Amino acid sequence: MQTKEKFYSYIQNLQDQITAQLEAIDGKAKFHEDVWERKEGGGGRTRVIESGNVFEKGGVNISAVHGELPASMQNYFNVKDCDFFACGLSLVIHPKNPMVPTVHANWRYFEMYDKSGRIIDQWFGGGQDLTPYYLFEEDAQHFHQICKNACDAHDSTFYPTYKKRCDEYFWNAHRNEARGVGGLFFDYLKASENKTIDQWYDFVTEVGDSFLDAYVPIVEKRKGLPYKDEHRNWQEIRRGRYVEFNLVHDKGTLFGLKTNGRIESILMSLPPHVQWQYNHHPAPNSEEEKLINVLKKPVEWLA
Amino acid sequence: MQTKEKFYSYIQNLQDQITAQLEAIDGKAKFHEDVWERKEGGGGRTRVIESGNVFEKGGVNISAVHGELPASMQNYFNVKDCDFFACGLSLVIHPKNPMVPTVHANWRYFEMYDKSGRIIDQWFGGGQDLTPYYLFEEDAQHFHQICKNACDAHDSTFYPTYKKRCDEYFWNAHRNEARGVGGLFFDYLKASENKTIDQWYDFVTEVGDSFLDAYVPIVEKRKGLPYKDEHRNWQEIRRGRYVEFNLVHDKGTLFGLKTNGRIESILMSLPPHVQWQYNHHPAPNSEEEKLINVLKKPVEWLA
Repeated sequence: MQTKEKFYSYIQNLQDQITAQLEAIDGKAKFHEDVWERKEGGGGRTRVIESGNVFEKGGVNISAVHGELPASMQNYFNVKDCDFFACGLSLVIHPKNPMVPTVHANWRYFEMYDKSGRIIDQWFGGGQDLTPYYLFEEDAQHFHQICKNACDAHDSTFYPTYKKRCDEYFWNAHRNEARGVGGLFFDYLKASENKTIDQWYDFVTEVGDSFLDAYVPIVEKRKGLPYKDEHRNWQEIRRGRYVEFNLVHDKGTLFGLKTNGRIESILMSLPPHVQWQYNHHPAPNSEEEKLINVLKKPVEWLA
Repeated sequence: MQTKEKFYSYIQNLQDQITAQLEAIDGKAKFHEDVWERKEGGGGRTRVIESGNVFEKGGVNISAVHGELPASMQNYFNVKDCDFFACGLSLVIHPKNPMVPTVHANWRYFEMYDKSGRIIDQWFGGGQDLTPYYLFEEDAQHFHQICKNACDAHDSTFYPTYKKRCDEYFWNAHRNEARGVGGLFFDYLKASENKTIDQWYDFVTEVGDSFLDAYVPIVEKRKGLPYKDEHRNWQEIRRGRYVEFNLVHDKGTLFGLKTNGRIESILMSLPPHVQWQYNHHPAPNSEEEKLINVLKKPVEWLA
């Protein structure tokens, strides 16, 4: 089977697995499915959950699109007269309880063709990262340990490399702080002397397979913790930073918005209830300040 | 007096007038003042009101900054080795009652110098625009009429020209809808055969002087109207579009974020409580849908 068929089939199954398990945990809300088509070729299957017992809002979306490479992407990649195929799974989960972290993940595959249909480039990308509102260090350690295990099965340099890239990418530069406690981020994983495209497929799907192991135990552990209005307020203020990152810095979001992607599938990543207070600072030595301090400088969670 | 001193003095007084009148209307909350300095030269006076009877959040800020033109602005203006002076007043007011519109205004003056200190360019810019959550056509007409009166005192072409620029500027392209019902937007008002810089000063300050007349009668008329949770929900969802515009499209905001401006003064424009629901559409023939229909295509409010 071709890589693109194999990978698209993989993410279809993974979407089913992830949405089924999240529904089981939630116990109340179900994912609502929207199947959409892209006028220029391809389409997607968006699944959104809202107002659940555990999940206040979340999306687990797949898409597979193809056709002429849009002009903005031709400029970006510095190519001309190309066709492309791209498929991927993107998810963002915003839990209700402020003690449960938000999670984001994405696994994607890209092919570029010349006008005769010959593949001229192909690569994988993606990652997964955690955004807590209250810091439980053991949760960050658990998430990173699962990420590291998936990496180490393929190459001992992967975890430190892609952990660092994650810290660099999810940096809210105008706030001078990280979006969250990180995880993995990788892109342009191409066939080389060291790795075939099949080996990259094995790596990326191993990371995808690790997602539920990385996130679900944290949800199970924290979803029943008590919380007050003041914890919700803090969660909503921090969600404001999430919005700022996604709308100001996230290349994927901006790319989608500027190339006429399906807006509702792209912006499903935005949290349900959000606050902006002027010049908010947590009280000294509070749990809220503890989080901020950790976000100011990336932490080696497994050191 | 030099234009820059005259205009900075003008916006200091205007800030006092506006904040005093808004406090009087609110009757509960007072503006909190933060005076700040810019390391490279100049500073500002940020005034923010929060949790009032009438105003849920708002900022009325002035600043006057100077020094070497930052590299990103040198690129933008295609100049080298320049110094600059810029001052202005920026305001955004988010009322609590969803029947009262949000308003934004800005009036600014810019000078550029060569290294000998000679002025090589100078111009005014600014405008004011209205963002309702529920549409009262007479409010939009009133706001535009006051804008037109201020324009007509100077040139009969100004209102149609700057009204159109406002519609073009405050366009949420990824949603294919306007941010609100518009008003005026102008920039690069420079001395020419037709207007001296003093005449532009007279025009811009006439617009600034018109602001309270344009906005306050609308607030007074709508602030006591009853509303329900469903109206608040709609207001919070529409505020999400306001956030999207400011973080994705607004040149002023992005410029501030990317050139190390005072973050809290820039982002005071973001609304206090905001929602994002997946794929929200108002009910057919509802008041909410009536607003959306008007935002899809700019309206000639005074035709």
